Amino acid sequence: MSSVCLSMEGGAAATTPAALPYYVAFSQLLGLTLVAMTGAWLGLYRGGIAWESDLQFNAHPLCMVIGLIFLQGNALLVYRVFRNEAKRTTKVLHGLLHIFALVIALVGLVAVFDYHRKKGYADLYSLHSWCGILVFVLYFVQWLVGFSFFLFPGASFSLRSRYRPQHIFFGATIFLLSVGTALLGLKEALLFNLGGKYSAFEPEGVLANVLGLLLACFGGAVLYILTRADWKRPSQAEEQALSMDFKTLTEGDSPGSQ
Amino acid sequence: MSSVCLSMEGGAAATTPAALPYYVAFSQLLGLTLVAMTGAWLGLYRGGIAWESDLQFNAHPLCMVIGLIFLQGNALLVYRVFRNEAKRTTKVLHGLLHIFALVIALVGLVAVFDYHRKKGYADLYSLHSWCGILVFVLYFVQWLVGFSFFLFPGASFSLRSRYRPQHIFFGATIFLLSVGTALLGLKEALLFNLGGKYSAFEPEGVLANVLGLLLACFGGAVLYILTRADWKRPSQAEEQALSMDFKTLTEGDSPGSQ
Repeated sequence: MSSVCLSMEGGAAATTPAALPYYVAFSQLLGLTLVAMTGAWLGLYRGGIAWESDLQFNAHPLCMVIGLIFLQGNALLVYRVFRNEAKRTTKVLHGLLHIFALVIALVGLVAVFDYHRKKGYADLYSLHSWCGILVFVLYFVQWLVGFSFFLFPGASFSLRSRYRPQHIFFGATIFLLSVGTALLGLKEALLFNLGGKYSAFEPEGVLANVLGLLLACFGGAVLYILTRADWKRPSQAEEQALSMDFKTLTEGDSPGSQ
Repeated sequence: MSSVCLSMEGGAAATTPAALPYYVAFSQLLGLTLVAMTGAWLGLYRGGIAWESDLQFNAHPLCMVIGLIFLQGNALLVYRVFRNEAKRTTKVLHGLLHIFALVIALVGLVAVFDYHRKKGYADLYSLHSWCGILVFVLYFVQWLVGFSFFLFPGASFSLRSRYRPQHIFFGATIFLLSVGTALLGLKEALLFNLGGKYSAFEPEGVLANVLGLLLACFGGAVLYILTRADWKRPSQAEEQALSMDFKTLTEGDSPGSQ
């Protein structure tokens, strides 16, 4: 029975579901449009980006969209896209993409705090900023815990198996919270700058609304690819065998015991 | 083999995972706090609610939080909470909760459009309103398609099995989009009414920020209960048998064939 399963799974591991590449391509198109549109919005209506000037603020939305939306979203998709690579390679890529995302987001965070300091504005009073700080703390903790469980060699196979579903849930939740925080920030930027002109369907308002919808769609597309059961990364032969041994050993446990 | 599986699953069907009731209780506590806090915010800082006056607007946030957040969230949890009831009873409850949610949300929608008309304000210019209309259209379509597949007796078992994962994904996505839209609306209400006082940490601003974080937490709690694999509703004996026959019949299909 075990060997039959292994050979079936081994065969499946080398294939990619027919529709997956189209969905991944669509998500990338959405993601790149998102980054380009954020750049276009800042360039056309906000005077572009420069660090040592009043334009320093504009580095904030661009860095956040690149780091915490586009790169974070793609880091979640690594196990679906590179489904036939060695698990370790995929893990390292997943961790690296998250580090890039974090560093770029940190630049965006410095930009807004530095801008506020120079202008004498208050910090951390808005819902956007509260959600943003929450995202940062959760993201950093998730990275540290993920690293110690999955990349550091110390954690046992059973510990990894128990933590994996939690890591995936919190990863997806942090990503969705990032999308929600970006929407709040976009709304804040529009209401602060457009004011009453927003209700007159000013081109900037319409562009930013479309950008907001694209943000939500990118979040939805990443979530769809991530959660579709038949698109999950197939266990590779050796992992499958280990997982089966583990299952046999712990078969006595009830599902709700932990 | 099949009979062994059935008896194992039959045994599991009568039990509830030990931690599930605590998580459900926590989600209900969050949800009720959310509704009470929305009422407190409108009562303390916005003059309360009355239909035939300037206070008509205030019916909008309250109806939306009750309908599209609290009731919609609970409708998603029905299959986890009433896991040992007959499937048909649970389905009807799921459908009814969604109807209640839709009707209450419609009252909230009428409130804001009627208020805008009386005041001569523009409609549908903001990102909040665009997201809101999207939620309404998707929610209505999801209800109709869900009804025709799962409650209307015509749909075959195989059609239902194919549609079920899509229904669950889109249900969760519409719920999360509702939470995001509520956050955008809350932010809009704060920036319109508090203006510069928001950055002075006015009590209303702090209360509304906490309300926003609770909204995000309720969304996260519902998502956690909904997606945890070992908390999924166990298939009942007769459904299990049908599902196994179906699986045997279609075993030749490749996972990526559709």
